[in-house]
Amino acid sequence: MYDVAKIRADFPILSREVNGKPLVYLDNGASAQKPRVVIEAITQAYEMEYANVHRGLHHLSNLATEKYEGVRAIVARFLGAPDSEEIVFTSGTTEGINLVSYAWAAPRMQPGDEIVLSVLEHHANIVPWHFLRERQGVVLKWVEPEPDGTLDPEKVIAAIGPRTKLVAVTQMSNVTGTLVDVAAICRGAREKGVPVLVDGSQGAVHRPVSVAEIGCDFYAITGHKLYGPTGSGAIWIAKERMAEMRPFLGGGDMIRDVYRDAVTYNDPPMKFEAGTPGIVQQIGMGVALEYLMGLGMANVAAHEADLRDYALSRFKGLNWLNLQGTAPGKGAIFSFTLEGAAHAHDISTVLDKKGVAVRAGTHCAMPLLEFYGVTATCRASFGLYNTRAEVDSLVEALELCHELFA
Amino acid sequence: MYDVAKIRADFPILSREVNGKPLVYLDNGASAQKPRVVIEAITQAYEMEYANVHRGLHHLSNLATEKYEGVRAIVARFLGAPDSEEIVFTSGTTEGINLVSYAWAAPRMQPGDEIVLSVLEHHANIVPWHFLRERQGVVLKWVEPEPDGTLDPEKVIAAIGPRTKLVAVTQMSNVTGTLVDVAAICRGAREKGVPVLVDGSQGAVHRPVSVAEIGCDFYAITGHKLYGPTGSGAIWIAKERMAEMRPFLGGGDMIRDVYRDAVTYNDPPMKFEAGTPGIVQQIGMGVALEYLMGLGMANVAAHEADLRDYALSRFKGLNWLNLQGTAPGKGAIFSFTLEGAAHAHDISTVLDKKGVAVRAGTHCAMPLLEFYGVTATCRASFGLYNTRAEVDSLVEALELCHELFA
Repeated sequence: MYDVAKIRADFPILSREVNGKPLVYLDNGASAQKPRVVIEAITQAYEMEYANVHRGLHHLSNLATEKYEGVRAIVARFLGAPDSEEIVFTSGTTEGINLVSYAWAAPRMQPGDEIVLSVLEHHANIVPWHFLRERQGVVLKWVEPEPDGTLDPEKVIAAIGPRTKLVAVTQMSNVTGTLVDVAAICRGAREKGVPVLVDGSQGAVHRPVSVAEIGCDFYAITGHKLYGPTGSGAIWIAKERMAEMRPFLGGGDMIRDVYRDAVTYNDPPMKFEAGTPGIVQQIGMGVALEYLMGLGMANVAAHEADLRDYALSRFKGLNWLNLQGTAPGKGAIFSFTLEGAAHAHDISTVLDKKGVAVRAGTHCAMPLLEFYGVTATCRASFGLYNTRAEVDSLVEALELCHELFA
Repeated sequence: MYDVAKIRADFPILSREVNGKPLVYLDNGASAQKPRVVIEAITQAYEMEYANVHRGLHHLSNLATEKYEGVRAIVARFLGAPDSEEIVFTSGTTEGINLVSYAWAAPRMQPGDEIVLSVLEHHANIVPWHFLRERQGVVLKWVEPEPDGTLDPEKVIAAIGPRTKLVAVTQMSNVTGTLVDVAAICRGAREKGVPVLVDGSQGAVHRPVSVAEIGCDFYAITGHKLYGPTGSGAIWIAKERMAEMRPFLGGGDMIRDVYRDAVTYNDPPMKFEAGTPGIVQQIGMGVALEYLMGLGMANVAAHEADLRDYALSRFKGLNWLNLQGTAPGKGAIFSFTLEGAAHAHDISTVLDKKGVAVRAGTHCAMPLLEFYGVTATCRASFGLYNTRAEVDSLVEALELCHELFA
């Protein structure tokens, strides 16, 4: 039984007010709030168990190392990965995808080689590939969604040509909430011998994930969207791809031996983790993932599906509300503009006065906004602690906007 | 008046025991413990003030942005930098130096171009340059220290030739505690028109820093050694150099506009900060730096100089203790081996039994260990909260080692 009131009590910030109103936090797509267990784990780590990790040999260092390295197995379990040695810690999806771009893609791509990506992508899964276009003549091949935001896997597969070296695609749009059938894309890509990178920044937050079932080569997650600390994250990399990668960041821990005229590298995954890592953040992310698995990601998905359906039913009455993206099975992420009315920023400001936190802007997805012919939208993105009553609060605040600006 | 007992009370972990003994934490070179104000700031950020930063427009996002962006000015003040727009946030020195390697050095270096660096360097200030050697034929020119660990600025300056494009040097060795006269190096390098990167990982922790007085081009710090959170850090970059840099990590925030066939970049420093940053860590680092400035870095330096002198006077009686590095004016960092006795790892294990935390190994500085003809050492590194009594505890534990292993 998914008891949302009990869950809300786990998140200290949810009991605060904003502008004299109870906080209705609907900016989960940008970052999620943290349960008390995560905050307490951070405090515990710094107050009682802190030291640098690896090659410690003193008690606190061994303790910190054990906790930190233990997170690798938690991430592997959370992602349905067969082997925790396929987990590379990162500061988030942005670093994870840049790692792939610099360490795997850059050294193997020639001018004219192609990367297939969708118009749904977040800038984190666009700009690292633009670098390869700018710097070495790689061609970006874009696949458009349908008008409702659906991405047809067949169109992605059809875009894969003889020069395609990588497919880079999100599992869930952070703007429209579109759920992409990445498993189908991976099957088609595999038949053509092309690796697939999946941006799991949103996908992993809202439903159970199994990289084994998806069949991808890279799957990146970001801890702060998963109810964990800022600066935490990981990327799962198939062993075969990992073996093809050169190092990315250079420094301590990722080396075996350093001489004046030579350097040898550590084994993966350490080869890709340079310097003192985000020790306490990753420990916190581990606690967040345990918390999510404790709730059950299928239960989280069911709860959020209910919120989505309820929100859609309430939005139906608002004929001045334009939703960008209405794909079947989408997540509880709603991007919208108001008919002939205020700028997205003005809407979010009015909503904020009512305690309703949404985001306004381009949501780091400018090609998708261009596809929809808008320069900015508002986005209400729901998380595991949101409620139907909060949908009502959103709708009420939107109605106020409509009155004010129409 | 520097009241070390009062300061110790600010650090919760210092009151704990290890193996039934009071913790004597002498592993500050690897990472420093955190004062309560830093831990509380993290808790406050997550419990009451958390949201993603930039383009927020809702209350919590504006609050988090204000706190986060406020840290830039704190870092600038801490480093004596004239302009907070010259501060780029990083996850630590390793990322900072890699940023310089990828974004400034890589695009401008030809085969045969040289980087001058010292044998004192930490791997974080070696491996990113080895990448350039491996990938594009850059030549590393090494400058050896004197046997006592001193680095002669004239030797560094003399190594700068017509093909030299960069000098990369630490301000303080993490192994020997050698304080390097980086200002003298910068004067000489400037005359030859060559930029200087200073690794401030240790230097900034133990004494007042002014990048304006040093006259360098890049100065990198790491928050977790500065009594701040893991995953925090910054690099100061002279405006002139920043203007020469291409982007490094690609993603949100560092762009202005993203199209399918083009991308334009944000102004510095944002141009070099991709994706959701380490929001809470950087806020925590800001609090740590304020704490340090509250104590006064000159006072910290004086306290640690006293510890250094006291330790050296106590070590004099131990004729079986070999110190690597005894440069005048060095920091309170002592690397040592025991005459004809146990491996460094065994020593650290015995010390740990007495509650004394030191590090054993190569300290991410293999070229320096090779210079001293050792494969591993123990290192006792003092911080602002250590005491003369802890020096005594160290010496007592070392005497036990000597008895056990001699």
